[in-house]
Amino acid sequence: MQSKQSNLELLRHSTAHILAAAVLEMFPEAKFAVGPAVENGFYYDFDLPRTLIPEDLPLLEEKMKAIIKANYAFEKAELPVDEAMEKFKELNQVLKQELIDDLHKAGNQTVTIYKSGPLVDLCSGPHIESTGKIDPRAFALTKISGAYWKGDANNQQLQRIYGVVFENKEGLKNYHNLVLEAAKRDHRKLGKELDLFCFSDLVGPGLPLFTPNGTIIKDELQKHIEKVCRGYGFQKVSTPHLAKIDLYEKSGHAQKFGDELFQVASHYKQNYVMKPVQCPHQTQIFASQPRSYKDLPIRYMESEKQYRDEKPGEIGGLQRVIAITVEDGHSFCTVDQVKQEVKNMVEIIQNFYTSLGMWDNHSVSLSVRDYAHPEKYIGEASDWDECEKMLQDISDEMGLNAIKHEGEAALYGPKLDFMFHDSLGKEIQIPTVQLDFATPKRFDLQYSNNEGGKSSPVMVHRAILGSYERFIMLLIEHFAGAFPLWLSPVQVSILPISEKFADYAEEVRNKFLENDIRVKLNDKAESLGKRISEEEKQKTPYIIVVGEKEAAEKTVAVRTRGIKDPASAELRRGEQQTISLEEFVEKIISEIKEKK
Amino acid sequence: MQSKQSNLELLRHSTAHILAAAVLEMFPEAKFAVGPAVENGFYYDFDLPRTLIPEDLPLLEEKMKAIIKANYAFEKAELPVDEAMEKFKELNQVLKQELIDDLHKAGNQTVTIYKSGPLVDLCSGPHIESTGKIDPRAFALTKISGAYWKGDANNQQLQRIYGVVFENKEGLKNYHNLVLEAAKRDHRKLGKELDLFCFSDLVGPGLPLFTPNGTIIKDELQKHIEKVCRGYGFQKVSTPHLAKIDLYEKSGHAQKFGDELFQVASHYKQNYVMKPVQCPHQTQIFASQPRSYKDLPIRYMESEKQYRDEKPGEIGGLQRVIAITVEDGHSFCTVDQVKQEVKNMVEIIQNFYTSLGMWDNHSVSLSVRDYAHPEKYIGEASDWDECEKMLQDISDEMGLNAIKHEGEAALYGPKLDFMFHDSLGKEIQIPTVQLDFATPKRFDLQYSNNEGGKSSPVMVHRAILGSYERFIMLLIEHFAGAFPLWLSPVQVSILPISEKFADYAEEVRNKFLENDIRVKLNDKAESLGKRISEEEKQKTPYIIVVGEKEAAEKTVAVRTRGIKDPASAELRRGEQQTISLEEFVEKIISEIKEKK
Repeated sequence: MQSKQSNLELLRHSTAHILAAAVLEMFPEAKFAVGPAVENGFYYDFDLPRTLIPEDLPLLEEKMKAIIKANYAFEKAELPVDEAMEKFKELNQVLKQELIDDLHKAGNQTVTIYKSGPLVDLCSGPHIESTGKIDPRAFALTKISGAYWKGDANNQQLQRIYGVVFENKEGLKNYHNLVLEAAKRDHRKLGKELDLFCFSDLVGPGLPLFTPNGTIIKDELQKHIEKVCRGYGFQKVSTPHLAKIDLYEKSGHAQKFGDELFQVASHYKQNYVMKPVQCPHQTQIFASQPRSYKDLPIRYMESEKQYRDEKPGEIGGLQRVIAITVEDGHSFCTVDQVKQEVKNMVEIIQNFYTSLGMWDNHSVSLSVRDYAHPEKYIGEASDWDECEKMLQDISDEMGLNAIKHEGEAALYGPKLDFMFHDSLGKEIQIPTVQLDFATPKRFDLQYSNNEGGKSSPVMVHRAILGSYERFIMLLIEHFAGAFPLWLSPVQVSILPISEKFADYAEEVRNKFLENDIRVKLNDKAESLGKRISEEEKQKTPYIIVVGEKEAAEKTVAVRTRGIKDPASAELRRGEQQTISLEEFVEKIISEIKEKK
Repeated sequence: MQSKQSNLELLRHSTAHILAAAVLEMFPEAKFAVGPAVENGFYYDFDLPRTLIPEDLPLLEEKMKAIIKANYAFEKAELPVDEAMEKFKELNQVLKQELIDDLHKAGNQTVTIYKSGPLVDLCSGPHIESTGKIDPRAFALTKISGAYWKGDANNQQLQRIYGVVFENKEGLKNYHNLVLEAAKRDHRKLGKELDLFCFSDLVGPGLPLFTPNGTIIKDELQKHIEKVCRGYGFQKVSTPHLAKIDLYEKSGHAQKFGDELFQVASHYKQNYVMKPVQCPHQTQIFASQPRSYKDLPIRYMESEKQYRDEKPGEIGGLQRVIAITVEDGHSFCTVDQVKQEVKNMVEIIQNFYTSLGMWDNHSVSLSVRDYAHPEKYIGEASDWDECEKMLQDISDEMGLNAIKHEGEAALYGPKLDFMFHDSLGKEIQIPTVQLDFATPKRFDLQYSNNEGGKSSPVMVHRAILGSYERFIMLLIEHFAGAFPLWLSPVQVSILPISEKFADYAEEVRNKFLENDIRVKLNDKAESLGKRISEEEKQKTPYIIVVGEKEAAEKTVAVRTRGIKDPASAELRRGEQQTISLEEFVEKIISEIKEKK
């Protein structure tokens, strides 16, 4: 596996040289920078006499194919620095000269160069044997972008060409399918088509408005999480979106967030900020009453919006927003209770992601401190040792197989981070459980302990789905908009064959409404076929057709949305089946309840 | 009835004279300003040689009783202005001299004075016959405060003494009970005792934090409203708390709210404000897709926070807050649909307030335009005529008996306003249904009409409970904290007689949990009596005691909170009753469902 991956890397990096050779044919004045292998392919940076246009790419691809066909050998040579410098001066490659100079300064007396056909390049290699080893049907140039020389914005700007390379044409085909698939699943596109959220120029960028459909998904997720967490003793609270800056100076967030904080000036000499996180508000509810060890753990949860002044260039879709609805929870407990609290939270995360079919591919990170730099953290080393051991024990006892990552802990304590993969293989890192000894002390939180004195509680932070905006984006893309029944804005659509069956359609509709099933009656003056196709486009889980036979027999003809093919946004249409209305209602009630 | 009320006013104003006489005895240097009758009693303003202290009031009351006992006649005399001026110069009453001067300037040649025992006062009367007509057990001095001479802050400050006077001692007793009752029901006091909400100095005034108990009440109200409104086709949406100032310049709210708007500056040259109302955001959801007449009415509802920069002096408890959670809804419809929409909204209001037992005492205002000043409104006179007639018809058809109030309409259209009375008789004006032709036009909202053209929808605004903060305040005071079962944070408390019955207590608890009943197990190491009294103080609707007999027979001994006595915050403890667990669970499930 290791060696195969390296072969592919060789192939990709070698193709970068072939691109450079093709560019040289097209622009004899071209200056070359660097051209490494990256995920799926490579890039190469050039200084060119004119700005590239997309139409250049197929031309370059043709030239590359010719170079591949010529099957030039990759010939390696090792040259003394001054000789190499002379060579690249001859070639008028000023950027390469600068690189040779850098290598020299770093102590190198010789450098390696590779020649392949018309191109001589400064490169440490290794390469494939000859250009002919590349399958001309297995590569493609994909993108043009800008890049700074040596990645430094003070340097001159270069033009970068990206390409992808695979072992064979099937590899390239799969890649193209994946790209198409991702485009089809793009949450901005589906969000519009399924009418889940919208933006308004008058309201502003980064401020999504959840439409009725999107609000249903958000509310269903929230109800689900709240129900699960209530079972573990979490109590919902509700706090405002403003606080005096004093709150965040005390918590340390004012310093941490800096310019990301939205400052709000009152006309009455009060300086507010919009909350960037929920934790400080929740500490104030804890602090509002005297607490005893008998009351602990006290667990709060909340789904409220937070606001951060994000850079306009970074705002887009639901990926990065200014108004972030965060599902956040905290347990205030004694040191002795921490372990059970963490275990409960891991269980909640496990249950939640299992119910969405995402747990199978999970991995866990035990994020501990950087042992070489204890000064980067607050708190006692003994507390840290104890907490890290506790998280390790939890990983062992719960079979989490957490991988230790040094230096990944939070300022105030170690944590468990959970990673998943969506149906396109993209990594999602959202849930986290974090130990925090510092915040309760900053806020002077106390409880009467069982020895008649006062103690500080420990605070355990937990995130399950993180922000609703980002999570809904992930769900849209993961399910390609074909949400599970319990999350679907419309669960059942009823299509009467004609007006004659309006009464029975109404009867069926009421039956669903009585059972809190989200139903839509599509009795528009359009052909049945058109209405079916409309509902299919909306990815409605069940489409019900009612006509003479159904009305007479109190049945429904059900078209099931079909099982999602994980490799495709297209849905295989399920069977059409006629069953009794009674039976069908029971079936979907149980499906909703079980979150299938 | 009219004449009796006037008698009481005479009594009250005459008692002000008696207070003045008593003050003169205590402070011979006292200067008198004015002393009118007010609701429940009177006040009198004085210029005194020292600041009054609360201990002065009983001393003055004793002197007043002596004056009453002396039964001085109120003797009226009419004097020419110069003679009266001479008299009050003799008495050294400079403020009265100023009043005589004012009367003279206003054209009076004579003034009336009243003499009663030692006091001569400038007064137009009338009065009671003699001081003895006042029942000495039926009055009390209640409060000292400051007041400006002639109500002008540029004038000297005077001291005001308030008193109450009734026909007999029962009247005074009832008044005292009402005051005590209001104090007991004060939402700030009960809010703390029942742990419903809190404030934090670090977060800031006017920014309530809803604790778990308060959040349950808020969420139950919201769930109830949303369920009722969903039945009428309302769809929930969710919008952010920020928008560009442009949104409110277009809606007109920027001009209307002025300094009440919280301005939020971004670091990226964007001027935001925190939303002061929900309507403009909702128009943007309507505008986000093409709409057809076939889609109308489109009805949105939302329970989100709004923010207003209130004067610090006006902020207090939940009465006036900066963060206002408003339940707001709008219907976008055709002109033909308006009537049915309004009727639906009236029905929703009727159902909601009936379920809280508040509908019985309602009254309705049909708030129409000021016909003498049509320039104060926007829109066509014919539209106004039609809308006002429509609301009148609705009132007639639905038996609302709406009273027409000229000049009370909104800028953009007429409205129906609903008034109720809480259990202390205080008027509550919250729900409203308003017609609005203007906002859709300001935002260029359109739909394709059935003639192939474009039309502007009508917007019908409706508020049901208004803001959750104020509504919860009213509920706390209306129910004196003894919320109906469906709103109670804890619905049932289980008190095992001793540890021996922990298993059965747990079994009972699980039975409630399975049925989504909010249950608390109070198994603290305290006597049963103490725990019962604790739960009674928390006004838990049902307290369940389980011991040997109950465990053996699978029953529960239920102590019902008892029916609220509308005249008192005290609850008459209901019967204690032993019934089967099964039966009890069914009973309270049905009570919760029926919102008893």
